[in-house]
Amino acid sequence: MSSQSQNTGRRPELRHDPVANRWVIFSPARAKRPTDFKSKSPQNSNPGDNSSCPFCIGNEHECAPEIFRVPSDPNWKLRVIENLYPALSRNIEGPCEEKEDMGVPARAIAGFGFHDVVIENPVHSVHLCDMEARDIGQVLLAYKKRIQQIASVESIKYVQVFKNHGASAGASMSHSHSQLLALPIIPSAVSARFEGMNEYFKKTGKCSLCEVQAKELLIDESTHFISIVPFAATYPFEMWIIPRAHSSHFHEFDCDKMVELGGLLKLMLRKMSLQLNNPPFNFMIQTSPLQVKESELSYAHWFLQIVPQLSGAGGFEMGSGCYINPVFPEDAAKVLREVNLPVAG
Amino acid sequence: MSSQSQNTGRRPELRHDPVANRWVIFSPARAKRPTDFKSKSPQNSNPGDNSSCPFCIGNEHECAPEIFRVPSDPNWKLRVIENLYPALSRNIEGPCEEKEDMGVPARAIAGFGFHDVVIENPVHSVHLCDMEARDIGQVLLAYKKRIQQIASVESIKYVQVFKNHGASAGASMSHSHSQLLALPIIPSAVSARFEGMNEYFKKTGKCSLCEVQAKELLIDESTHFISIVPFAATYPFEMWIIPRAHSSHFHEFDCDKMVELGGLLKLMLRKMSLQLNNPPFNFMIQTSPLQVKESELSYAHWFLQIVPQLSGAGGFEMGSGCYINPVFPEDAAKVLREVNLPVAG
Repeated sequence: MSSQSQNTGRRPELRHDPVANRWVIFSPARAKRPTDFKSKSPQNSNPGDNSSCPFCIGNEHECAPEIFRVPSDPNWKLRVIENLYPALSRNIEGPCEEKEDMGVPARAIAGFGFHDVVIENPVHSVHLCDMEARDIGQVLLAYKKRIQQIASVESIKYVQVFKNHGASAGASMSHSHSQLLALPIIPSAVSARFEGMNEYFKKTGKCSLCEVQAKELLIDESTHFISIVPFAATYPFEMWIIPRAHSSHFHEFDCDKMVELGGLLKLMLRKMSLQLNNPPFNFMIQTSPLQVKESELSYAHWFLQIVPQLSGAGGFEMGSGCYINPVFPEDAAKVLREVNLPVAG
Repeated sequence: MSSQSQNTGRRPELRHDPVANRWVIFSPARAKRPTDFKSKSPQNSNPGDNSSCPFCIGNEHECAPEIFRVPSDPNWKLRVIENLYPALSRNIEGPCEEKEDMGVPARAIAGFGFHDVVIENPVHSVHLCDMEARDIGQVLLAYKKRIQQIASVESIKYVQVFKNHGASAGASMSHSHSQLLALPIIPSAVSARFEGMNEYFKKTGKCSLCEVQAKELLIDESTHFISIVPFAATYPFEMWIIPRAHSSHFHEFDCDKMVELGGLLKLMLRKMSLQLNNPPFNFMIQTSPLQVKESELSYAHWFLQIVPQLSGAGGFEMGSGCYINPVFPEDAAKVLREVNLPVAG
């Protein structure tokens, strides 16, 4: 494909499609990513072979620059580094000016942003769900700390935290990691979520996620969190972990509750793995835009969304944005609720 | 997975998620679909083996009821039939009443709708892009005719026409076919597109798709259509075929231009196949809601969207609704423009 070599010298750019009504990131660097997956199945990768893995302890020199590590000594437990193949560039000088381009009256801005990787464990074969709750808590605290750092950059509007586990869930490296992508725009799904939550609040006077109580949808709960299958889950066996108390921004949430959240996340990942035969999965932290204050957001409530990759999207979903879920949420919740696993410490 | 057997007796339902702000179809029947793909690669299916394919000529009795065929005799060239595993049910009595359900204040309606299959060719091994332009034109006319029939049902708000080619693009049958799904709601991507197009119109006084002229984005053109890579293409090598004259509803478009459209569609599919190594793909007809009149839609313009499946979505795309495209549209357009293929008759 000759176009990729033509692209390599170009800078990333964000373009707004006036028809689809959303922003798209154009990022030639992403085409150059290597993969350590031999096939699309995560089981086929060799989890013991870490000789060539840049995320393994001892191979730090093969990575893009480090942002911070925990603890800050050679025996680190996690590292936050720059992505070697960033979707957006932190090195684009000047403000994000809009420009008319290509002879069509559509908007484009320079592809400024941050794209970081959180290496969740120094050991290649240890996945997030194998880790202890307190170490998963450290990973969550690393997300929080990094978002707090990024929040000082005025042109960044939203930070998407996400994890891809397994090649078919979008991971290019099998070593357990997650990512943060800090954007100079508010992406369309976040705007839609805000409109939805705001509309609900205007109608009922209550926050849509403070309200969730339905027993049939409950998977599990802890002191400060509940986990449910949402009433209109987009994907089969989709799970949400929601803080009980109203909270709009993940990065302003209490540090001392992150271990508890880590324990519930671990439990959900293990239940999913056991009941659904270790599927590839994604999780995302669904939080609020950075430049909006917590006090103004009585309708917005952050949550952690876990999605096992059980079915792909086809033309119907791509065209309409409407998904077909073959499993009713109350049935999925029952299946997940009834696995008995101890809450790991 | 025990939940699927529990589901089989239930009727489909549409639920609105107040948080994600979109409708989801819950359809237990979809879990029961068989597949004739041996693996996720369309090349691995055996295109010569039609003995067990219900879509082949001679096997009509294995299909769900027929809606119409062209021509209307035993030697049909195409058939429109009901989907044996419909996402929505045409047999749900009564109107689509909203109900409060599950103790959570969210909306649900009965899963009423039509889900049809267009068998594009009687022969198992003939794909759409192998067919002559006039026969592809007949397939497009079948879409139009079927939408016109459905348009008389007042509770249907939108019809999504789509094609999945290849297992990884969502196809469960290798015999060349496409589908229509008629919905009692306007799906979120359609609402977003309408808002985008309307906003553009308010700003410029012009329709966003009547305006497209950029030479750098052009792939090809015919008397009444142009094909482009859109300025902010969501997916690499995404293509749009757009009628030059303003037209809001595909099913109200001139019958006598469908062969020309079929020829340009064939050309785009062949260019894509040649330049991108025969990828799985989807195409979708992006049209306007049924109950809105053409005369009220000076901002809405239908188009046919073709998307080769070259990269999957990960947690970032799922969480944010923002896509990362490694190929700039002007580069993709150049690659597709410069393949020389004759316009087939």
